[in-house]
Amino acid sequence: MLLSRLDLIKKEISSINEYVPGKSIEDIVRAYGLDPDSVIKLGSNENPLGPSPMAVDALIEHAPQVNIYPSADASELVDALSGHTGFPAHNIVASGPGMDGLIDGLMRLTIARGDEVIIPMPTFSYYEIAARANGAVPVLVERNVDYAVDVKAVQDAESSRTKVVFLCSPNNPSGNLVPVEDVRAIAEFTHGLVFVDEAYVEFADSSLVHLVNEYDNIIVGRTFSKAFGLAGLRIGYGIMPQWLKSEYMRVATPFNVSVAAIAAGTSALSDTEHLTKSIELVREGREFLKEHIPFEVYDSQANFVMVDVAPLKARDVCESLLRKGIIVRDCTSFLGAGDSLVRVTVGTRKQNERVVENFGEVQGL
Amino acid sequence: MLLSRLDLIKKEISSINEYVPGKSIEDIVRAYGLDPDSVIKLGSNENPLGPSPMAVDALIEHAPQVNIYPSADASELVDALSGHTGFPAHNIVASGPGMDGLIDGLMRLTIARGDEVIIPMPTFSYYEIAARANGAVPVLVERNVDYAVDVKAVQDAESSRTKVVFLCSPNNPSGNLVPVEDVRAIAEFTHGLVFVDEAYVEFADSSLVHLVNEYDNIIVGRTFSKAFGLAGLRIGYGIMPQWLKSEYMRVATPFNVSVAAIAAGTSALSDTEHLTKSIELVREGREFLKEHIPFEVYDSQANFVMVDVAPLKARDVCESLLRKGIIVRDCTSFLGAGDSLVRVTVGTRKQNERVVENFGEVQGL
Repeated sequence: MLLSRLDLIKKEISSINEYVPGKSIEDIVRAYGLDPDSVIKLGSNENPLGPSPMAVDALIEHAPQVNIYPSADASELVDALSGHTGFPAHNIVASGPGMDGLIDGLMRLTIARGDEVIIPMPTFSYYEIAARANGAVPVLVERNVDYAVDVKAVQDAESSRTKVVFLCSPNNPSGNLVPVEDVRAIAEFTHGLVFVDEAYVEFADSSLVHLVNEYDNIIVGRTFSKAFGLAGLRIGYGIMPQWLKSEYMRVATPFNVSVAAIAAGTSALSDTEHLTKSIELVREGREFLKEHIPFEVYDSQANFVMVDVAPLKARDVCESLLRKGIIVRDCTSFLGAGDSLVRVTVGTRKQNERVVENFGEVQGL
Repeated sequence: MLLSRLDLIKKEISSINEYVPGKSIEDIVRAYGLDPDSVIKLGSNENPLGPSPMAVDALIEHAPQVNIYPSADASELVDALSGHTGFPAHNIVASGPGMDGLIDGLMRLTIARGDEVIIPMPTFSYYEIAARANGAVPVLVERNVDYAVDVKAVQDAESSRTKVVFLCSPNNPSGNLVPVEDVRAIAEFTHGLVFVDEAYVEFADSSLVHLVNEYDNIIVGRTFSKAFGLAGLRIGYGIMPQWLKSEYMRVATPFNVSVAAIAAGTSALSDTEHLTKSIELVREGREFLKEHIPFEVYDSQANFVMVDVAPLKARDVCESLLRKGIIVRDCTSFLGAGDSLVRVTVGTRKQNERVVENFGEVQGL
């Protein structure tokens, strides 16, 4: 290779920390020689009840038609989301791959080299990756000691180049909501956009989505990967002001939501029984985990709990659980999370009991 | 809305011409009150034989597991592609949504505001959209009168800011290959990357993919949307030098290929019977169309033919065919294509006969 070829790569790229995905069952089976059926995957906040049976039926029904392109803008899914959310279709964008696709689109819509995005950390790491990949400078702001967003720090970080403030609510990995008055304050002082990531909102007591009707700079991102149990199909959506949807659609990759995703997503929205069951399982399960895991467990509005294993190290605890076939998430790869936080997806009752039992055993590490 | 909000949008965005997708059966049924079963869709270069039956089986088998995330880098599909192409996995990237996802990734990897890409037109319009969306200046170069790439014009367009030259082979919409010596010449004089789009290569007599082994700046893009009949699942892939894959993976959106796409794509690769049948149908059909459509029909190495309906207008001919339930592609939206070119996907024998008959009837327009 000519050395000069590396000059073709945008200079921001070298500053990107690789995204660290949760481990798969195959990873663990390979690493520790375990029986795949004995492994439980509680590291990626998936739905332990599986996808909605109605979504599975829709997938099977549409399988013979996957030779045909989907609609370019997933209009059928957007219409179904309109019914689900109460927002008109002109406020809704369906996105793939997942909500990440929406974040990618938003970055390329707004970021010119050197523009800034504000990220209160620790939080979902893809904001920073997408920002850097698009040439933005991520301005990382620490949260308060209870992981609440430090509104004053966000305001101090604001500059004339601020394009987007990322707020995750419930926050990944801490599980807490951003209070509505904090979002209002930020939307009012920033001249940028406020992206509210509500990937886990179905498990929460409240949503911030009504703010889209009040502010012309708030976008809410949602996903089918968590409560709807369709992580494998990579479907997200955004609710945003009409002016922003018009601009967004100019940069959206056409056909970014697949035929399978449109069919399954639309059906999942109508399966309120599966959704309700999934939410109830999580609400009971997270109380159970909080009560019985013998470490500090934070209150959570999501389908996971964050556990502080100090004075132990998250790495050691996760390694110990992995060896026993329990995949949880070491939060050390989340910037600003320190080295003693572990994120555990709420599983079935039986899975949760196994988690509790094994956390008990690591106490003596 | 505060007027100033529009300042948040990157200025390049306003120059993007919206992507014009092929019309769907629903569009036509709605517009002309036709029976859906009477409409034939030959506007989007889909596979008229449907998806591979093995891919359909794989989709059905994996439907109950779509609550689980796919591997972040679609490694199973990459391994299968390695077997299919003969390239090692370190040269292969799987991408979603479709090959467009690969183009998006390549643009964000390389383009800083004001960098240039060279596009010999008329060609697939998404190169220009993706380039502008990422802040690049597309340098549009006319093709020769026979739609061959004008290598001299590409060389004249080269500048110190050239990052990518897009070559579509077989070209959409003209159907001709780029001769290997032209690709070599361009790869040698450009200091940028050469992106060779081989979306239609399975229908062609030859491929340019071996050049990836010889040049450190050639990338070949491929898709499952055409010969493999999986347009609805949005799967593409790229074959590129190892150094470039390493850089690319830093900006790739994680999990961009869905569980459904990995399962169906892997199975489709092993279904050589369906692939062979699909290719044979196209090779016979394009000869038939060339022989019988009573206008100038260009030689094609793809699963479509380009028809010059001059002195008629493409718009009028397409409108007339649409009214009769035949969806073909008016190429007027392809920059540099003029107003008399129509692209017709090769269909089944019966569909092709209907096409020929109806082109006969429009002669008198």
